[in-house]
Amino acid sequence: MANDRDDALVVGVDYGTLSGRAVVVRVRDGAELGTAVHEYRHGVVDQTLPGSEKPLPPDWALQVPKDYVDVLRIAVPDAIKNAGVNAADVIGIGTDFTACTMIPVTADGTPLCELPEFADNPHAYVKLWKHHAAQPQADRINSRGEKWLPRYGGLISSEWEFAKGLQLLEEAPEVYGAMAHWVEAADWIIWQLTGNYVRNACTAGYKGIYQDGAYPSEDFLRELHPDFAGFVRDKLDHPIGQLGDRAGDLTNLAAYWTGLPAGIAVAVGNVDAHVTAPAAQAVEPGRLVAIMGTSTCHVLNGAELREVPGMCGVVQGGIVGGLWGYEAGQSGVGDIFGWFTENQVPPSYHDAARAQGVSLHEYLTALAAKQRVGEHGLLALDWHSGNRSVLVDHELSGLVLGQTLATKPEDIYRALFEATAFGTRMIVEAFTDSGVPVTELVVAGGLLQNELLMQIYADVTNLPLSTIGSAQGPALGSAMHAAVAADAYPDIIAAAAAMGSVNSGVYQPIPENAAIYEQLFMEYADLHDHFGRGANDVMHKLKALRRSAVAGR
Amino acid sequence: MANDRDDALVVGVDYGTLSGRAVVVRVRDGAELGTAVHEYRHGVVDQTLPGSEKPLPPDWALQVPKDYVDVLRIAVPDAIKNAGVNAADVIGIGTDFTACTMIPVTADGTPLCELPEFADNPHAYVKLWKHHAAQPQADRINSRGEKWLPRYGGLISSEWEFAKGLQLLEEAPEVYGAMAHWVEAADWIIWQLTGNYVRNACTAGYKGIYQDGAYPSEDFLRELHPDFAGFVRDKLDHPIGQLGDRAGDLTNLAAYWTGLPAGIAVAVGNVDAHVTAPAAQAVEPGRLVAIMGTSTCHVLNGAELREVPGMCGVVQGGIVGGLWGYEAGQSGVGDIFGWFTENQVPPSYHDAARAQGVSLHEYLTALAAKQRVGEHGLLALDWHSGNRSVLVDHELSGLVLGQTLATKPEDIYRALFEATAFGTRMIVEAFTDSGVPVTELVVAGGLLQNELLMQIYADVTNLPLSTIGSAQGPALGSAMHAAVAADAYPDIIAAAAAMGSVNSGVYQPIPENAAIYEQLFMEYADLHDHFGRGANDVMHKLKALRRSAVAGR
Repeated sequence: MANDRDDALVVGVDYGTLSGRAVVVRVRDGAELGTAVHEYRHGVVDQTLPGSEKPLPPDWALQVPKDYVDVLRIAVPDAIKNAGVNAADVIGIGTDFTACTMIPVTADGTPLCELPEFADNPHAYVKLWKHHAAQPQADRINSRGEKWLPRYGGLISSEWEFAKGLQLLEEAPEVYGAMAHWVEAADWIIWQLTGNYVRNACTAGYKGIYQDGAYPSEDFLRELHPDFAGFVRDKLDHPIGQLGDRAGDLTNLAAYWTGLPAGIAVAVGNVDAHVTAPAAQAVEPGRLVAIMGTSTCHVLNGAELREVPGMCGVVQGGIVGGLWGYEAGQSGVGDIFGWFTENQVPPSYHDAARAQGVSLHEYLTALAAKQRVGEHGLLALDWHSGNRSVLVDHELSGLVLGQTLATKPEDIYRALFEATAFGTRMIVEAFTDSGVPVTELVVAGGLLQNELLMQIYADVTNLPLSTIGSAQGPALGSAMHAAVAADAYPDIIAAAAAMGSVNSGVYQPIPENAAIYEQLFMEYADLHDHFGRGANDVMHKLKALRRSAVAGR
Repeated sequence: MANDRDDALVVGVDYGTLSGRAVVVRVRDGAELGTAVHEYRHGVVDQTLPGSEKPLPPDWALQVPKDYVDVLRIAVPDAIKNAGVNAADVIGIGTDFTACTMIPVTADGTPLCELPEFADNPHAYVKLWKHHAAQPQADRINSRGEKWLPRYGGLISSEWEFAKGLQLLEEAPEVYGAMAHWVEAADWIIWQLTGNYVRNACTAGYKGIYQDGAYPSEDFLRELHPDFAGFVRDKLDHPIGQLGDRAGDLTNLAAYWTGLPAGIAVAVGNVDAHVTAPAAQAVEPGRLVAIMGTSTCHVLNGAELREVPGMCGVVQGGIVGGLWGYEAGQSGVGDIFGWFTENQVPPSYHDAARAQGVSLHEYLTALAAKQRVGEHGLLALDWHSGNRSVLVDHELSGLVLGQTLATKPEDIYRALFEATAFGTRMIVEAFTDSGVPVTELVVAGGLLQNELLMQIYADVTNLPLSTIGSAQGPALGSAMHAAVAADAYPDIIAAAAAMGSVNSGVYQPIPENAAIYEQLFMEYADLHDHFGRGANDVMHKLKALRRSAVAGR
């Protein structure tokens, strides 16, 4: 069995919203030798539970845990096969996951939805990050001015562990009672690989309100709900592992699933965005990494602790040991573009794209790229999936303004591109204004392939824009953490230097575009504050009316 | 030749935005015996002039006058043929037209666009009512606080004779100079039928600022532009005919075109909306007639003169002799729905509609009709074609708010229905608040066939809603005016009683829907005032940016 340094391999597995991707990476230089993707059989469960016809309420988004295991069983062996390598050379495996994605489990880690008595209870399933039905709970968590709030930009998201946990207690106390642990999917998958439950420092800090070695107090929890007092003690608290640490060894069962050698290093769980920063060599302060896919997650290292309004959170060592890791995010980006192409593009465009042999996205992008800045006359708010940063409000919704009878699909498509860029600029300004400077955008994720979108981001933010060298940044970043866990590198900074890659400054702002976007951004900011900061709360009212209309059906 | 009272016939011709319709009507009871439609060969010219590839600027909308004559040559004989009657029994013809639709002509009525030297000059063509490029001129006309402004709700529209005329002078002085008359298409078509140029009292009052026997003063015109001082005297002023008067006799040439007897009565020109009120027997005060097609025109008789903010105008005898005729309007209604189905509905919906053998409008309507009020969570502003009443601002644009990733095409479609209903309610409230009570909605026009839309209008306005008995109200109304011009009835009130028809109160407000729409209307009103009354003038800024981007191409 060849296991010397030159041939050593690691496997990274990136669990996204719709699929899981495995990549086989050479430890010495980060070369990606093979990859495979497995789409979750049940995808995002937002209409009805599997085998049921009962509609889920609005804003729900669930998943099925077995779909995650299928990625280990299918994508990992496929990636090894595609790489044409010997699985025996693999010395470690690392994973990253969407977050905050939560699973209620028994003491041995069995998801409650796999128990017959809970199979038809939506609350027993995985609550995906974009499950947005716990806003009332988040509002109550935020209303008490706790001392840890500034670490989260002033607001805890409805997406996170406490809001989702409180919703579970209040809406399904029987599920809550049967639950031994309320587990991040990021950690549950490591549990499946190692047999050990280890909470990772990243999600514990960013999503679990674990700051300076402590969780929110029992008194605080009791005030939220008497039966919630023991939430931390009974359901959440558990030993914490640092990023790049070895969570344990690959079990025989997991070796059987994956075809990898039993006993190899398994890295502590991690999050898609956070593992990507070292994959793009963005470990220094000032480089804002935007991982742009269905949503965008922004991560940024800072030398000092600052309180940034509307950021998702700041965690010491949350991205890289020794630095303060800042996180922000946009709840909807690529999924807004996807929703648009699925729901709002007429047959003639589909036909023309097919005739040209390009995707609908490519076709619309080519049309939109012909336009000058401002030509479509539109302005949009990118809140179709709510607003994570800087407003932290998932009751907000989308807006398109400026339509005329001459407005074409590519006009709206481009306006949605721009809206997400304005959303990113809002985040950049929040960091800069709070003393955490941003000097460069580093983009990772599938959307970096869209050159128009990248140029718009450079023009709107007026920043140089770099792109990650890898097409599978999170999986590569997970593999890098596996290499650290397997002791191939002393720390993630060393691994990043050897295994990461970035195309520096490949997009530069075009001054005449940036000047017009400067005006448009001021208009965006006006709408943003008018609808997002309470001057007109029509979006909240419409969501409430929608809920009562659906409930009255 | 049978010409006794029992068999006597009249022909009405309704010139719409895209086509002209002729109907053959029995004088004694209004029975519609035959009809025919002819679509304008050039439709609405808003991209390039015929035979040219040079793009027109944004907001332009032109037509080709020969298309109007083709309606006389094709639709009128076809209607006679379809009726299976003897053309010799026809005793009169009447017409109605879109307004304000303006043609620059020579002294003999030849449109300037038919002269070789002007064939490639867009300004020599018909400026259709929805040509919205004269807003800067309208703004200047409105800025001087003239005494006639209150008769027009405080604002003269960019659609009307003076704004379009001033644009013509300023942008194409050579065309302006060559023009002997600036003629409403409503009067130009009568000129073609009779050889006489007679200005009708309706457009002269509503669109030509003719009030209390006078036009705006020469001093006022000179202040707008020195060369505009003679606009009224040289280009506009001309003898005025009252509605239902005989403009003249059918010429031999027009008899040859139409197949009708030469010498029969031709009624003074009229406007589509205004002829429809008697066709729906809505001649009493309180009955607001909404003629709902591509746009909506509202006409209402009142016993007294009141100043209503944002109405289009009030003209004595503007609809029916002896009453004050009030007009208001929404620039975009059916064309917004049409734009939506053409540009924003995906292939699966087209396929499903085809499979069911229904139109896309019918398919979307059926889906939208299943929803409860408020269920889609959306709110829209119906300003895709600007706002005629009550804001009189064609620099405004559309807005859709509340989109999520679950938003479906039928959701937006229904929200656009509702937005136009809220727009109508704004108008109803403006009249009521100004002492011109509205007690009933009477709907005419093609959109009355949509039962969902009608119920939404009843619910949103909280008024009983009646529908006109005829499927071709304007053409019937024109035929009724022909009967009056031919002396078959003493006046239009007598003709309305004998020849008009209405289905009274066929839609009644549903209280639980009306209650929710009451809340939604308050939200609509908030957006309406915020974006329409200057608090946020982003729509104006976007239009200006769009113009400069297009100009810079």
